[in-house]
Amino acid sequence: MTETSLIGKSMIRTDSVAKATGQAIYTADLKLPRMLVGKVLRSPYPHARILNIDTTRAERLKGVKAVITGKDGYDIKWGVFPYTQDHAMIPTDKVRYIGEEVAAVAAVDEETAMEALSLIEVEYEELPAVFTVEEAMKDGAPLIHDQYKNNINVHVHIEVGEVEKAFSEADIVLEDRFEAAGEMYGMMEPYAVVAYYTPEGYLDIYMPNAGPHVRAKALSNLLKMPLNKIRVRHINSGGAFGGRSEISPGDFVTSLLTIKSGRPVKLVYTREETSIATRQVHDIIAHIKTGAKKDGTIIAKEFKVYYNGGAYSSTGPIATSIPFYVYEETYRLPNLRYDGYRVLTNRPIRGMYRCHGRAFLAGNAMHMDKIAEEIGMDPTDIRIKNGIRAGEVTATGSKIISCGLEDTIKAAAKKSGWKKKRGKLPPYHGIGMGCLAIMCGFPMGFRSGSSAYVRVNEDGAATVISGVVDNGQGNESVVVQIAAHALGIPVSYVNLICSDTEATTHDPGAYSQAAVFVSGNAVRLAAEDARDKILTAASQYMKVDKEALTIEEGVIHLKDEPETAIKVSKAVRYAMSKGNHIQGYGTYIPKISFDREWVKNPYGQMAGTFSYGTSIAEVEVDPETGIIKLLRMVVAHDCGNPINPMAVEGQLEGSVGMGGVATILEEHVWDGGLQLNSDFLEYKLPLSVDMPEIDPILIQSMDPEGPYGAKEGGLTISMSAYKAIANAVYDATGVWMRFFPYTPDRVLKALEEKKAKS
Amino acid sequence: MTETSLIGKSMIRTDSVAKATGQAIYTADLKLPRMLVGKVLRSPYPHARILNIDTTRAERLKGVKAVITGKDGYDIKWGVFPYTQDHAMIPTDKVRYIGEEVAAVAAVDEETAMEALSLIEVEYEELPAVFTVEEAMKDGAPLIHDQYKNNINVHVHIEVGEVEKAFSEADIVLEDRFEAAGEMYGMMEPYAVVAYYTPEGYLDIYMPNAGPHVRAKALSNLLKMPLNKIRVRHINSGGAFGGRSEISPGDFVTSLLTIKSGRPVKLVYTREETSIATRQVHDIIAHIKTGAKKDGTIIAKEFKVYYNGGAYSSTGPIATSIPFYVYEETYRLPNLRYDGYRVLTNRPIRGMYRCHGRAFLAGNAMHMDKIAEEIGMDPTDIRIKNGIRAGEVTATGSKIISCGLEDTIKAAAKKSGWKKKRGKLPPYHGIGMGCLAIMCGFPMGFRSGSSAYVRVNEDGAATVISGVVDNGQGNESVVVQIAAHALGIPVSYVNLICSDTEATTHDPGAYSQAAVFVSGNAVRLAAEDARDKILTAASQYMKVDKEALTIEEGVIHLKDEPETAIKVSKAVRYAMSKGNHIQGYGTYIPKISFDREWVKNPYGQMAGTFSYGTSIAEVEVDPETGIIKLLRMVVAHDCGNPINPMAVEGQLEGSVGMGGVATILEEHVWDGGLQLNSDFLEYKLPLSVDMPEIDPILIQSMDPEGPYGAKEGGLTISMSAYKAIANAVYDATGVWMRFFPYTPDRVLKALEEKKAKS
Repeated sequence: MTETSLIGKSMIRTDSVAKATGQAIYTADLKLPRMLVGKVLRSPYPHARILNIDTTRAERLKGVKAVITGKDGYDIKWGVFPYTQDHAMIPTDKVRYIGEEVAAVAAVDEETAMEALSLIEVEYEELPAVFTVEEAMKDGAPLIHDQYKNNINVHVHIEVGEVEKAFSEADIVLEDRFEAAGEMYGMMEPYAVVAYYTPEGYLDIYMPNAGPHVRAKALSNLLKMPLNKIRVRHINSGGAFGGRSEISPGDFVTSLLTIKSGRPVKLVYTREETSIATRQVHDIIAHIKTGAKKDGTIIAKEFKVYYNGGAYSSTGPIATSIPFYVYEETYRLPNLRYDGYRVLTNRPIRGMYRCHGRAFLAGNAMHMDKIAEEIGMDPTDIRIKNGIRAGEVTATGSKIISCGLEDTIKAAAKKSGWKKKRGKLPPYHGIGMGCLAIMCGFPMGFRSGSSAYVRVNEDGAATVISGVVDNGQGNESVVVQIAAHALGIPVSYVNLICSDTEATTHDPGAYSQAAVFVSGNAVRLAAEDARDKILTAASQYMKVDKEALTIEEGVIHLKDEPETAIKVSKAVRYAMSKGNHIQGYGTYIPKISFDREWVKNPYGQMAGTFSYGTSIAEVEVDPETGIIKLLRMVVAHDCGNPINPMAVEGQLEGSVGMGGVATILEEHVWDGGLQLNSDFLEYKLPLSVDMPEIDPILIQSMDPEGPYGAKEGGLTISMSAYKAIANAVYDATGVWMRFFPYTPDRVLKALEEKKAKS
Repeated sequence: MTETSLIGKSMIRTDSVAKATGQAIYTADLKLPRMLVGKVLRSPYPHARILNIDTTRAERLKGVKAVITGKDGYDIKWGVFPYTQDHAMIPTDKVRYIGEEVAAVAAVDEETAMEALSLIEVEYEELPAVFTVEEAMKDGAPLIHDQYKNNINVHVHIEVGEVEKAFSEADIVLEDRFEAAGEMYGMMEPYAVVAYYTPEGYLDIYMPNAGPHVRAKALSNLLKMPLNKIRVRHINSGGAFGGRSEISPGDFVTSLLTIKSGRPVKLVYTREETSIATRQVHDIIAHIKTGAKKDGTIIAKEFKVYYNGGAYSSTGPIATSIPFYVYEETYRLPNLRYDGYRVLTNRPIRGMYRCHGRAFLAGNAMHMDKIAEEIGMDPTDIRIKNGIRAGEVTATGSKIISCGLEDTIKAAAKKSGWKKKRGKLPPYHGIGMGCLAIMCGFPMGFRSGSSAYVRVNEDGAATVISGVVDNGQGNESVVVQIAAHALGIPVSYVNLICSDTEATTHDPGAYSQAAVFVSGNAVRLAAEDARDKILTAASQYMKVDKEALTIEEGVIHLKDEPETAIKVSKAVRYAMSKGNHIQGYGTYIPKISFDREWVKNPYGQMAGTFSYGTSIAEVEVDPETGIIKLLRMVVAHDCGNPINPMAVEGQLEGSVGMGGVATILEEHVWDGGLQLNSDFLEYKLPLSVDMPEIDPILIQSMDPEGPYGAKEGGLTISMSAYKAIANAVYDATGVWMRFFPYTPDRVLKALEEKKAKS
């Protein structure tokens, strides 16, 4: 990278000013002419047959413009894969959780809409309900969907090597059960949808979402409309964290309301609705058996993991396998058997999560430390020993093309003072570590790749059109930076048009850590194409060889003779005067196995590349109160060559909050199917005072596939932070705490049990 | 064209349903969060020095968020060419017409905004004013701008051949003065602007306009902002007719108000403001001298034409030459001298117009008929004799690549029963004709060409991204039809994204009759590129030669064996699974002389091609009341190969209303600088009861450059209809009426004068 390179320079994010000054506009702020207010009638029962819905009184109320029930839909069920299509969005047969959509109204104002809801009469027949995976899997348990035996919705089975033989050869065998309660995504922004079905038959729809093109595809299926008649837009969003990955019943409800009324409709969820009727986080039970040699080599793994999926399939096939994959992409695992079960219960629907798999991943991390302790090996060494390396192939067949795992372990250990602290801290003080890989650009069918387009105007400034979407991660800023770098112009010269399925083209969205890696690569290719066309024009105008030219800060000059120069604007004007518009095009599709499926064929190249991260946590446990204080987190991240280090550091800080502090605080509390803490008064979201000192470390490397060597930023920390905390709490207390979160009551109970045993 | 061809099929326009049902959303309907109301303080004087503006009281009023004057601008003046940059948008030195912008406010509601206006104190020093070109050009007349001597703003001088010699050789020499009053554009939609300057420094602006990219360029200059920071959008608009071609002070005012307040601002003009403070139509005085041989050959022309330009340059350089060019593109004119003067007066600013040049063009038509009468030749024959033909080059150097002029004359004559009627109708009944050419795609600098982009989704439907803009002409529908035809898919499968300068790319807009010819060609090329990629994928999937395949109605099949077929969607999915997105790109720039300038070098190739039209009018004049009844208009139009004949016919009907009926009704009435009839109660816009029977005739031909042979649709009729009426009124009354419009008082006066003479 030259001095004028924009890659690796920390930049203020393009969305900072508006957000910091409160001027950013969110979906709930939108106003459209003649817009109606939408409201949803929700189920008061966790499981009940719908015998009848009478909407006549609601329809007669003055000011009500549409009343819909499930019968207004198109008899299509949603699911990520054909074999999990079970979600009608508004059911007609029975309700399956408290808060499920039953009917909805659109009216001229909120008061009328609320009154209309009260006039809808629903006759239910209550049915027995199940809430935990144990209850749900029992023979004879009430079935939530007839087609899923024992309520098992997805079963992922993966087997590699000779598992029994490996266990028989192991010097150490550990077997434990780990459990984690579900959490809230806790987006600051309540869910909101604004939709307008135009007289021409186009659906224009806004909602906070992690992938407009993916959302459009789902709506296209459910509404039986072609993709190009559904324009999904995303403006600012107050976080996603995996919870806005998938179509929401609210999208479908609002679409039906605008289709029926012919007027724009805005649906804004309350906080309670947001935490119940959008996706929730799976609670997980993980049985882990580990076999290791006494030199620390892990030779056998057997997993049985149960994911409480709530009432519908949702992203089940993916959610049931992600924790396994990120683990097997981190360590060399020659013999393994994974059985992941997603089990349906009468609780709200669970989906993907930025910190998904806590019980499973932290459980594995605890086993790693247990083995290290047993054989007297340092936790850093056992991780380096078993850690995967560039050039290796994972158990399920993914080639690792770049890997900074060892570097992250070493850097984090050094920065944290690991050697001086581990096992040597005062009582109730502890330090622990955790490592993780994450895939960048995983299989998403026709949405695995991204296309981008770059136009350079006659004033030398450029517009990038990309399907990239930003939920607060800084994705928009990063692709702007990539384009500016490729074009050789300042960042401020680039405008980005994105998050609009009709103005932009194919893109995976902010799934699969694709924003920088996939969308960023497409933007890079498009900008490089435009740059090439600019240089062609300049070489003709300047009558010099194209290869002799370069572009820096908006000026094209001879590489050897910087004073022979013209502005980019001059070259563009020259090209335009000759009938050429300066436009570049780029498509990038990650090198993955396209025939790979999440459940049916779980082997093959899973991702374009993988990033790596290590978290080290230092904690203090108060034996009187059970309160864990997270003192410091050192987080080292191999994100390849970071485009905008400040943005990556921001992601690492957020990851510490969500993956780390949440481990101490966050838990959904239930009474059967009723969520008891659905708002921010009752639910303990980390506040700034709860945050530890954070030392982010960027392990700079060059990924051969990433745009200018870049990979994903942040997720390896959000999913390794809790591992580090689990091990730190053991270091502090000598107790392996196998149930998350580590709330004071659980800590006290664990300390008492330990005392009782000793 | 095959049976499944979509070209030449009449299609319901894509905007019809929304407009017909009143659901179409216009700029004034838009709502943005925190939006303010803008209001403009206007000059009460036609000419006055601004001594002082005190805005302090207005600023202090509660609810007022911004008050601006000309001093809030950037000291840049607007003009289409460097030598006509004289319009500061909000003046700081003096006001130059009644209604000119002096200051503006943005407030929380209209009442507050109006009150704030009343609190702004402006001290003026009145100056002597001039209102007619004669007054303005007099030596010693008050100068409206110091730099324009005798208030002559633009002088176009064109000379070809040997004019004096030719006149000396002429058998017949005619010399007359023709005059036409100004008119109102009469858009149903009052002018409106909604703008928001975001915290990131982007200006998002909506207004009805004829070319978003051209508007962005002007705003970019005036606001000193790069093009890509100005996003001009256009939603539905209630007509343009040439009057929304150019930046309006309202755009600038609203931009300054949102920049200053940091909040979105909506400015909606009253009807009176719309008719005074947006562009007006030039009133024109044309001195025409014609020399012809007795065989009817026109051998000499000398023109002196004075255009009352109002207070600023506006599109002066173009407006002063367009009437001349369209005339010299219609007839063979070996010797000519044209002097066009645009003269500034203290009346509102005049701009381009769909029926521009009435006095000049009708004057020439009357000379043509006078000569024919004198030599006993039929008006059709003299027009065919002098009419230009394909392959010829016009006086100023434009090669004519296709020309249906003669066909339009013959077709219109036949349909109208010309031979049986001309000179043979009862007293006070008459029939007359007029012919005209119009250029398609004329020089607009960097905006002469268009680029388009086509994406085809995996469901076989497509999205077209084009800068095309539709002001009610049907342009959007036409490019959709072109794309569908090129792709071989139904029209309903195509969505169009347009009228948005950041989501779309370079485009001239609906100027220069470019929509079908230039933008349509770019869309055609992009769609053909996408089609080629679809066929490549299909040939790989089907394992057949690409050349053997064709696409019809969304199905790809072997040309010789239609049952061997796959759907387009299948080919797209196959391509995507192989890592290829189906996307096509196209750029079209008309073959014009790029070094040609409107005033400085008026010779060279003026346009990509030219369309032709003939109007024949049949009238009845009531000698008692002076009322002319337009009975029937036969209008024949060579629009090349019409893409959507119904849309072209719609344009022809509109052209008859605006170019024809208006000739009888429409006139702005003035008291000095004060417009007396600025609303639809006082100003006589044609109503449906005023419309004649209309016989539209499409002369189908194939232009070698137009998309699928198409050219412009409509303008040759709007600018020839009044020619036909002038000649028909002569045929009915024996009076050459040299002043437009033909209002009853003028008709009566002319009849009386004739009576007095006889």
